[in-house]
Amino acid sequence: MYEVELKLRVEHQDLRERLATIDAKPVGTVTQVDTYYNHLTRNFAETDEALRIRRETTDSEKKAKLTYKGPLVDADSKTREELETSVGDEEIMAAILESVGFDPAATVEKTRERFRCGEYTVTLDSVTGLGEFIEVETEAEKIDPAREGAVELLERLDLDPDQGIRRSYLGLLLDAE
Amino acid sequence: MYEVELKLRVEHQDLRERLATIDAKPVGTVTQVDTYYNHLTRNFAETDEALRIRRETTDSEKKAKLTYKGPLVDADSKTREELETSVGDEEIMAAILESVGFDPAATVEKTRERFRCGEYTVTLDSVTGLGEFIEVETEAEKIDPAREGAVELLERLDLDPDQGIRRSYLGLLLDAE
Repeated sequence: MYEVELKLRVEHQDLRERLATIDAKPVGTVTQVDTYYNHLTRNFAETDEALRIRRETTDSEKKAKLTYKGPLVDADSKTREELETSVGDEEIMAAILESVGFDPAATVEKTRERFRCGEYTVTLDSVTGLGEFIEVETEAEKIDPAREGAVELLERLDLDPDQGIRRSYLGLLLDAE
Repeated sequence: MYEVELKLRVEHQDLRERLATIDAKPVGTVTQVDTYYNHLTRNFAETDEALRIRRETTDSEKKAKLTYKGPLVDADSKTREELETSVGDEEIMAAILESVGFDPAATVEKTRERFRCGEYTVTLDSVTGLGEFIEVETEAEKIDPAREGAVELLERLDLDPDQGIRRSYLGLLLDAE
């Protein structure tokens, strides 16, 4: 399975109404605060790795995860090793990381409003310091038809798929510094 | 509050009967497998720190914790900073640590059979590679009377408090290497 994802910078103002007209169903809002770490002896931006604590809050719960992303193992499919576990107390997890030589390098804070539209998840992201975005994603065995479906969905929302952004929010924030 | 603890090396054979005669109540058995880590750039034995994943199994549950212990801040009371959080998946936690430069340095595996005896917890520890031990511990505002009570308890069990061991199981295992 591949994850196919298209992301555009777009103001959300009347997008929710357009989503309703194409029968996209709201499936909840989540706030994610991600803190990325570097080690004293290893700059993860240079090694193409990431170590992250994510604090995730929905209406009904609050949880935290520790995630490691390894360097790209396949550039075409953008495949990386990803290791993730829940942690009971994110403040203590952060204190442990800092005690053993890690420093917080960047924080990405966003609110994600999700919609379901057939096989696709549409997400309206509001990213602190960056602005508003839309993401259309799905998982599929074959990349090309999944990508075409995402392009079509964006066109039905009156958006221009050629304006796609490949950079991560972390990358965009670091670019902006 | 201080934690007062006396530990002796002793075979458990008829200790359970002696514990029954002094009205110590069994309160459960737990297995703990502790893996201690070093960082490529930092030997925690030298810096007097520890980073540990503990996998704890009882009859009814299985859980895992990540713990950091800082260097001694007060030698008399043996006070250290201790940071601990539960983790959802200890295998993934271990894989994350190894991905970011930590190596497993030592493993301590023990079964702990606990008894309650007044203000004291008595623990029969069977430590893989080291043998059998008893620990008597309590928390108290004043060290001296708590220590005297622990000494008395050991004497009622026909044990010699002067044979007390101060080294941790990790220390004893590293000594034995």
